[in-house]
Amino acid sequence: MSLADLSDEIAAVVGEDACIRDPERQSAFVVDWRNLVRGRTALVALPSTTEQVSAIVRLCASANRPIVPQGGNTSLVGGATPSEEGNEIVVSLGRMNKIRAMDPVADTITVEAGCILRDVQIAADNGGRYFPLSLGAEGSCQVGGNVSTNAGGHAVLRYGNMRELVLGLEVVLATGEVLSKLRGLHKDNTGYDLKQLFVGAEGTLGIVTAATLKLFAQRRQVETALVAFKDLRKLMDLLADVRAHCEEFLSAFELLPRAGIEMALEHVPGVRDPMAKVFPYYALVELSSSQVYVPLRGAMETLLAGMLDRGLIEDAVISASQQQAAELWHLREACVEAQRVAGPSLKHDVSVPLGAVPALIIEASAAIAEAFPEVRIVPFGHVGDGNVHFNVCIGRRQDAGAFMQSAERISGLIYDHVARLDGSFSAEHGIGRMRVDELHKYGHRLDLSMMRAIKATLDPTGLFNPGRIFGTASETGVRAKRRA
Amino acid sequence: MSLADLSDEIAAVVGEDACIRDPERQSAFVVDWRNLVRGRTALVALPSTTEQVSAIVRLCASANRPIVPQGGNTSLVGGATPSEEGNEIVVSLGRMNKIRAMDPVADTITVEAGCILRDVQIAADNGGRYFPLSLGAEGSCQVGGNVSTNAGGHAVLRYGNMRELVLGLEVVLATGEVLSKLRGLHKDNTGYDLKQLFVGAEGTLGIVTAATLKLFAQRRQVETALVAFKDLRKLMDLLADVRAHCEEFLSAFELLPRAGIEMALEHVPGVRDPMAKVFPYYALVELSSSQVYVPLRGAMETLLAGMLDRGLIEDAVISASQQQAAELWHLREACVEAQRVAGPSLKHDVSVPLGAVPALIIEASAAIAEAFPEVRIVPFGHVGDGNVHFNVCIGRRQDAGAFMQSAERISGLIYDHVARLDGSFSAEHGIGRMRVDELHKYGHRLDLSMMRAIKATLDPTGLFNPGRIFGTASETGVRAKRRA
Repeated sequence: MSLADLSDEIAAVVGEDACIRDPERQSAFVVDWRNLVRGRTALVALPSTTEQVSAIVRLCASANRPIVPQGGNTSLVGGATPSEEGNEIVVSLGRMNKIRAMDPVADTITVEAGCILRDVQIAADNGGRYFPLSLGAEGSCQVGGNVSTNAGGHAVLRYGNMRELVLGLEVVLATGEVLSKLRGLHKDNTGYDLKQLFVGAEGTLGIVTAATLKLFAQRRQVETALVAFKDLRKLMDLLADVRAHCEEFLSAFELLPRAGIEMALEHVPGVRDPMAKVFPYYALVELSSSQVYVPLRGAMETLLAGMLDRGLIEDAVISASQQQAAELWHLREACVEAQRVAGPSLKHDVSVPLGAVPALIIEASAAIAEAFPEVRIVPFGHVGDGNVHFNVCIGRRQDAGAFMQSAERISGLIYDHVARLDGSFSAEHGIGRMRVDELHKYGHRLDLSMMRAIKATLDPTGLFNPGRIFGTASETGVRAKRRA
Repeated sequence: MSLADLSDEIAAVVGEDACIRDPERQSAFVVDWRNLVRGRTALVALPSTTEQVSAIVRLCASANRPIVPQGGNTSLVGGATPSEEGNEIVVSLGRMNKIRAMDPVADTITVEAGCILRDVQIAADNGGRYFPLSLGAEGSCQVGGNVSTNAGGHAVLRYGNMRELVLGLEVVLATGEVLSKLRGLHKDNTGYDLKQLFVGAEGTLGIVTAATLKLFAQRRQVETALVAFKDLRKLMDLLADVRAHCEEFLSAFELLPRAGIEMALEHVPGVRDPMAKVFPYYALVELSSSQVYVPLRGAMETLLAGMLDRGLIEDAVISASQQQAAELWHLREACVEAQRVAGPSLKHDVSVPLGAVPALIIEASAAIAEAFPEVRIVPFGHVGDGNVHFNVCIGRRQDAGAFMQSAERISGLIYDHVARLDGSFSAEHGIGRMRVDELHKYGHRLDLSMMRAIKATLDPTGLFNPGRIFGTASETGVRAKRRA
């Protein structure tokens, strides 16, 4: 069947107003949000029910045309945009954005895949509960994408990745059948837990159409502090100290190096240096609690005083108000924004066993500084989970072409250090199309062959998201761009 | 190859002292601990390394003889004992009981599958950390079995099932290859999370030989209380009240009906009635914390006083000492022990969405009482997770034969109510051999066909644990005994 005929048949299912065929109107769906990956498609279909998704899958299967499922299109690895060949149909879940049910007693919310993450947070809050997944793209990313990429973010330390927050899923399979596991049971050991297959599968095994998610008690107290320290080798002692004293309250532990703050001061309006003196490293520590018996302010003060006494930190700032807390978080986000403004940068989303975080940062930074003395090294982020956003930015007076020429070697240096420390070259962001080479280089042969076997079992014709995770020869062009 | 020849070849790998061929010495391995399922085997092999397990798998695969992997043999559903045909080789992991590594900074412990759960708890404790999985069989069950059955237990409410506690696995596959995923990363999104396949697979997809598990901060304070209440329909309001005030401290919420306590008073020496007055229902509430800033006693007292004020509870007892706390937990365990002593009983390990727990207990109890007025109904346990151990015991003056004749109808009544409330007929215990009929009756066709497809992909010749989960015609005999 021609793509045009297939598009007509899909239009007959979803309605012409739910089809975008005009390339001029497709850009939000075929170009990734960093403008690094540009694809083409005959059709962006916007189904509004699970039945419509199922019908589209059956039509594409019989026409032998692959599908790219898409949520908020905020992938950092080119996982959600169609390929350049133009033979893939984009199925955008954005119109499936209903909150189907919220149950404050069972502590669950059932939402459609196209719900924007922030809307889920707000719905939970309006119901007197708390949904903890939180990440930079929360204003535009969608739950289906969060599930399919096993999203992480700021609160993993306390609440886990998306996998831990998913109690049930509804998924359209390659046959068009609908796997419906939305019962919201906290315990169910009746055979294999099939939903686990689709969490983090990046849309290669089925299309997630709805999810039942865990809710938690609302945060009635939040205390945020920034601590400064000199010796990165003490980072994990610092974390251990916080955990030993406040484990159940700890909800964020983020590393900020001075280099990141300097870039934020330079490039982002309104950012202030948080302390009178300058220190090489800072950690953002957030304690939060649903209970009101213990004043968290006192706990935070006692904790920080003890850390000063124990010589773990040099200085500390506690936010006196919600606004000051927001400013501390803004400082963290400004480090990201500053990197964007400052010019080209190389993002590496890596993780290592917790104890190896200091070694990774110290050793990989030294190797990069020696080979490429001009670049700026900004390793920051969710170190409480062993996750480092090991970003490398163009030097102040460096030529962009020269910087991009060193990209592959810089990334290789970082990934080799990560591999030597038994880490992961993609902690949160997944593989998509941009990390396919790394998966083949650093992944184990047995793991890859098992993944291929699972893929062949659930999607034997390669209907869903071809080229993502596994890659194909035709993807080489995209992969060559992955450093950009 | 004959079983005798295969046994000789396996003996050449593990050593004759690690082989048990004499039926007289095999009883601990071929009879389940409740003495309900009796099987036969030519050989119980006790490998002491992963390489030996791999060699055994290759030998059995080439001889086309199935393997029953076995941990502490504490399955409640006949999952770990060999069939009556005698053609299965038992591979007991009990000699693989080394703690391979403990990393208090990374908050992980890596243990072999044969480690007894209590030994893992102790090792964590000795290292200044806490491993939260806790269940009745913890003195004899093994980690490999805990992984393979996705074990639950007392602390799921706070720390999750075993699935949430597993950071990495080492698994011997049907090919004899070793899938090694023991890096202990808290975040890793590099393709499908293969280890999830083996959690809760009941040994049907591979043999778990080691696991990297999450550790937590030690409990520095524990407060235990028993509260009494009249109206079961208020149970979830009670739980919601505890969560709203103390969610991050709540580590257990167990239901005890008066019927269970009466049986404990009658059959278990040393059990005392916990309160001066008699109430129809009790809940055991445990708060625990790693921090010392907030005295939990005060939090518990304030919580209970508020619950009395709000009319949610009738009376409450707070344990004044560790010994009193142990007595309250003993009362809970005595309810289980009393059922064993009192004669035949039917165990049903079911779960429903949290809000449906009262309806399940009220409606199924009424239906049973109407049809079988003589029996004693004791629904108790981890209701904080929606999990009810819905046990039905022989009546005081009831004939055992008559009781067992009504077994199938009683179980059917309970499971039908569970299904109507969108629940699970096996919340913690799994399928094994005894719940195969229920899986086929209450499981969805699509789920079952997907499970079979996964099984066929990873274990195409049916090497591992045949008849468990999926069942075969030859299992009918065992299934007929499942009510015993």
